Amino acid sequence: MTTTTNTRSTDNGIDLSRLVETIEAIGDDPSLATFTFRARSTWQDGTYNVGHIGTFTHAGAEDESRAASFVLHGDEPPVLLGANKGPNAVELLLQGLAFCYAVGYVANAAAKGIEITRMEYEIEGDFDVRAFLGLEGARPGLSRVRATGRVSSPNATPEQLEELCRYVQDTSPVRDSLANPVEIETTLEVV
Amino acid sequence: MTTTTNTRSTDNGIDLSRLVETIEAIGDDPSLATFTFRARSTWQDGTYNVGHIGTFTHAGAEDESRAASFVLHGDEPPVLLGANKGPNAVELLLQGLAFCYAVGYVANAAAKGIEITRMEYEIEGDFDVRAFLGLEGARPGLSRVRATGRVSSPNATPEQLEELCRYVQDTSPVRDSLANPVEIETTLEVV
Repeated sequence: MTTTTNTRSTDNGIDLSRLVETIEAIGDDPSLATFTFRARSTWQDGTYNVGHIGTFTHAGAEDESRAASFVLHGDEPPVLLGANKGPNAVELLLQGLAFCYAVGYVANAAAKGIEITRMEYEIEGDFDVRAFLGLEGARPGLSRVRATGRVSSPNATPEQLEELCRYVQDTSPVRDSLANPVEIETTLEVV
Repeated sequence: MTTTTNTRSTDNGIDLSRLVETIEAIGDDPSLATFTFRARSTWQDGTYNVGHIGTFTHAGAEDESRAASFVLHGDEPPVLLGANKGPNAVELLLQGLAFCYAVGYVANAAAKGIEITRMEYEIEGDFDVRAFLGLEGARPGLSRVRATGRVSSPNATPEQLEELCRYVQDTSPVRDSLANPVEIETTLEVV
């Protein structure tokens, strides 16, 4: 911990004083912790869809910080009847896990005064397409996911970095959303 | 069903004869149904990561159909200490559900001779950031997801379209991966 001091407010690019303020504010008023995130998709042709991710609700109010929606393209590879215009839906889940782990790791490292100089994740997910195609023999979704992180730090021991990895797993929003059941309500409007 | 005939091989942009061939081939050899998808991320600064989605394994062999990896940008909004350089990880899960439902809907519609002229999804996910911040009071991940589809078809009844919606839910890879537990193994390499 020789490279950090108490007067430093930003670590790993995380605004540490703002992080502490956020935790204190939510501790005082838990309603500040609530978010409703959104994504839309518009079907184009075949397996190709265009997605938009824009505003979200935070503590009951719309967040307007984004100048425009993020645009994502989703498609399947030819072996799954698509044209590779974008990654497929299952791959997006894996990408989400990678991003979630990385944000959790660098933010919690910052809170502990651990400097991160390299942080990569490789995620693999095993999937069987039979249920999607109406065939018996496998669950519809991912059967198993393997995540490998690679981290470098000049001021933490391997044991500290491994302990942080376990903590990040326990508090990761995406890991929890995949590892434990999420209630999903689906409705259809015929227009 | 007046607008479709048995000689038409492409519906909703889906190559129907190839879909049938795929189902038959997998019925004969279930190993053809197995995939391992992948995503990588490289941390940039703060909550900003860049992701890559490229090759995947199908039936034990690498798929080389993609000329290049897809590049994704992940970040948090300012209220979560980021700079909005991309959607966040939880939003990617919702986008994945939208894409998955849409692909499932149009492909299964094609198999049934149902023509789709419009297909949109809006997904909302409720999330509480307390566990991520080390505070008690909520699970780390999504507590509830609401998906609303909007579909138009010139040759199907509302009842047929609603039945298809239920079938797509039951066979959706992403819905299953969120609604039911996925085994996740996480390892860290200190480099």
